[in-house]
Amino acid sequence: MDTDAVRKSVDEGNRKFGAAAGRKDYAGLAALYTDDAKVLPPDAPIVTGRQAIEEFWRAAATTLGLTGVTLKTLDLEVTGNTAYEVGEADLKLSSGQAKVKYVVVWLRGGDGQWRLHRDIWNNMPAG
Amino acid sequence: MDTDAVRKSVDEGNRKFGAAAGRKDYAGLAALYTDDAKVLPPDAPIVTGRQAIEEFWRAAATTLGLTGVTLKTLDLEVTGNTAYEVGEADLKLSSGQAKVKYVVVWLRGGDGQWRLHRDIWNNMPAG
Repeated sequence: MDTDAVRKSVDEGNRKFGAAAGRKDYAGLAALYTDDAKVLPPDAPIVTGRQAIEEFWRAAATTLGLTGVTLKTLDLEVTGNTAYEVGEADLKLSSGQAKVKYVVVWLRGGDGQWRLHRDIWNNMPAG
Repeated sequence: MDTDAVRKSVDEGNRKFGAAAGRKDYAGLAALYTDDAKVLPPDAPIVTGRQAIEEFWRAAATTLGLTGVTLKTLDLEVTGNTAYEVGEADLKLSSGQAKVKYVVVWLRGGDGQWRLHRDIWNNMPAG
């Protein structure tokens, strides 16, 4: 599979991620992750597995007043059924706009779908 | 190459990382990264390339009073010449002990050496 095709799948995954967050569909958001995915949010323990990830996003989005996520890939490297992405995200929060950067490891499942398998982010510098 | 062998190389890389940090050898620390590695430190822009990474670590270690880093792999998955690691690190800082979690993407070079290619971390919850 060529990198361009994977890039399209990742773009599509990121678009779905933003759309699910925007409509507060946390089950839909969690479905974009692998069964045994791990999310590493700042200032929180590691969240493992789709069910826990759904609960994490519901709680975090509610606490922060998250109403929008826009993901932008900065680079993507592909090796077999694994791809790793470096990107930036704009978050709309009740406190205002926040900008984070992230690394996501994507895996292609037996169904051909690319899903988030490892997801970690932290803040860009203030201002 | 089997996962156990890669695990040993990653363990060795992490041990060297801690040793280089401990003796303030930032060129040695940077040499553990690929030429075009990216480091994504919290509250800072993305740092790209070995030279910039050396300068980042020198400045960050001096500012924070970093005197020790102990890295612990929580899980490691290997695909070809790429491996991605989830881990925890204990940092000795002038302000005390800090605990972070991280994702590192490792690449095996043509010389057989595994090096850090993507490196991102954030804080664990305050103790």
